[in-house]
Amino acid sequence: MVPTIATSTGPVLVVGSGLLGASIGLGLRHLGVDVHVRDSSPTTEAVAQDIGAGRSVRAARAAHEEVPEPALVVVAAPPDVVAELVVEALAEHTDAVVLDIASVKGPILDAVRAAGADLTRYVGTHPMAGREKSGPVAARGELFTSMPWVICPGPETGARAVAAAKNLAVDLGATITVMEPVEHDETVALISHLPQVMSSLLASRLQETPPHHLSLAGQGLRDTTRIAGSDPGLWVQILSANARPVVASLHEVREDIDRLIATLENPEASGARLDIAQLMAEGNAGQARIPGKHGGAPRAFATLTVAVDDTPGQIARLLTEIGEIGVNLEDMRLEHSPGQPVGLVTASVEPSRHAELVDELQQRGWKVVQ
Amino acid sequence: MVPTIATSTGPVLVVGSGLLGASIGLGLRHLGVDVHVRDSSPTTEAVAQDIGAGRSVRAARAAHEEVPEPALVVVAAPPDVVAELVVEALAEHTDAVVLDIASVKGPILDAVRAAGADLTRYVGTHPMAGREKSGPVAARGELFTSMPWVICPGPETGARAVAAAKNLAVDLGATITVMEPVEHDETVALISHLPQVMSSLLASRLQETPPHHLSLAGQGLRDTTRIAGSDPGLWVQILSANARPVVASLHEVREDIDRLIATLENPEASGARLDIAQLMAEGNAGQARIPGKHGGAPRAFATLTVAVDDTPGQIARLLTEIGEIGVNLEDMRLEHSPGQPVGLVTASVEPSRHAELVDELQQRGWKVVQ
Repeated sequence: MVPTIATSTGPVLVVGSGLLGASIGLGLRHLGVDVHVRDSSPTTEAVAQDIGAGRSVRAARAAHEEVPEPALVVVAAPPDVVAELVVEALAEHTDAVVLDIASVKGPILDAVRAAGADLTRYVGTHPMAGREKSGPVAARGELFTSMPWVICPGPETGARAVAAAKNLAVDLGATITVMEPVEHDETVALISHLPQVMSSLLASRLQETPPHHLSLAGQGLRDTTRIAGSDPGLWVQILSANARPVVASLHEVREDIDRLIATLENPEASGARLDIAQLMAEGNAGQARIPGKHGGAPRAFATLTVAVDDTPGQIARLLTEIGEIGVNLEDMRLEHSPGQPVGLVTASVEPSRHAELVDELQQRGWKVVQ
Repeated sequence: MVPTIATSTGPVLVVGSGLLGASIGLGLRHLGVDVHVRDSSPTTEAVAQDIGAGRSVRAARAAHEEVPEPALVVVAAPPDVVAELVVEALAEHTDAVVLDIASVKGPILDAVRAAGADLTRYVGTHPMAGREKSGPVAARGELFTSMPWVICPGPETGARAVAAAKNLAVDLGATITVMEPVEHDETVALISHLPQVMSSLLASRLQETPPHHLSLAGQGLRDTTRIAGSDPGLWVQILSANARPVVASLHEVREDIDRLIATLENPEASGARLDIAQLMAEGNAGQARIPGKHGGAPRAFATLTVAVDDTPGQIARLLTEIGEIGVNLEDMRLEHSPGQPVGLVTASVEPSRHAELVDELQQRGWKVVQ
């Protein structure tokens, strides 16, 4: 959890005070660190100060306050201006560590190096956190709690810069992973950028679908298309910055689609069924490798589904009783119920407790539907 | 909800007593309908009887009981034998309505017609329900509660057959939709079969990914790949039976992938950013059309995320307090927390109640992280 004393050394200057920058400022201010915020938009900067993310540099200067020389500069601006702001910060604050938090790392390091900046004091990082809203009003000091924060030192990065990045991540309650910039970019291409593209391509097929067809949509369609609702503006920047590894994965997907189209165009041919089975089994194998809760090894939980009335307190009562029975919930979801005011709660539990839990819930009058 | 008096007319014969057949038998038995079950596997048939899904035809014959002539035959066998079993049932039970519940409808109707069977007494249906487990042991009479059940009469289907199918769906608590077989198959190709293929193709990319890369996986990857864990054997039958409309959708996806690859291979070119933005926006537009809870119009809910300790009762206590505050939960999920024993509960609520709920929860000491 978040420590109550900061290990980060202030003063800290946050450049770019949108959702992530303001959240970092808020989290550090809660720990008593001296934070100033700056943004290209005076309004955004003022709002960030108002919510407690740090002192506005503009306001401080207008009040003739001295703005302290920062020990750490956090560049939290949109991806397409990050490299330029990092170079500026390294030149302006000649003793400070400068880090950025953009979601693609290699191209930024290359651009900072090409500008001839002091790379020993620079380190790229990527906190894997966010939310659907943007702007400082949506900021929360605890946005990074329990989320991975990847630290990507380049060959020139000094130990002081790495330590400053680690301290920041720890202060904000995140889990640290260290990775080279290129390895980071290939990883996020696969686990974040490709899923985004596949979800968007799938969802775009639904643009002309009649509503009474879409009303048959189940949880599978909802799950696979949820992230297709993401902000196009942000994703243009991410995908163009990380184009090379995304394209490599897209070529692999296209080969599989070609193979599947060829098979399905002649589904009665000898070997066709085996080809489809192989393709599905490869999906099984990949899916099974995604780690379970708490980053532990993937494991199978037993699930049960209970139908509950859609009124306040019903789900709480169910979970209270599961707690009374003494079974820990490993995962749960509330499923949509097309056309009826009934919720279906699907709970994942230890397989060894599953039968007992089903019995107990049924005895207590719950409608266990699956 | 499920009525307490059946509108279905017995006796009913269920042919194929796996998960779905046994669940139908169980549901009808709860309503007092006379049900017999038959399966190509004597063991499966015996288990279906043991769990209360109906009287085993084999057991009845061995005991020299008279097996009553059915008014309704439900064919609930694997897709690749359904048409043959429907034709047999129409020939053997010359006054019965015969329906099947396979997930693809056009090819079965074509095969039954080609066999010269009495199509006035046949109707294809598709209950959109299932679970991860298979076999009669996993059966539940309430499996169909609140789920869509599509009824697909062909041009020759008589009114008595349609009425029997509707009565069955209503008796089992499902929501009825009527659609022509071809329209049904095109719909499920888009909302069920294509999502399955896209999820499998995405997940298959993870087969060689190092575990420390996968440990950075977020909810987006988990959501988009969840259904990639489905049974290959079943999907071989579904995809080969519904190949034509699935291929049509796959061609569209391939065109989009080609367009995206061309754009990302030269991401600095004029117009490249606009192309990517267009593709993402099309995904936004499709995703926004998926109906919300209860099959109503899509609508935006406000979300908030609370960090809770991963101990029994914590989530229940949170939901109890949300109930006390008087806010109805529209959706919720428990997010995984890589590397830390903390759960993140994300709740969707009416936007008008969001600010109040966040305030109240914080006052009560909950850690609202987003």
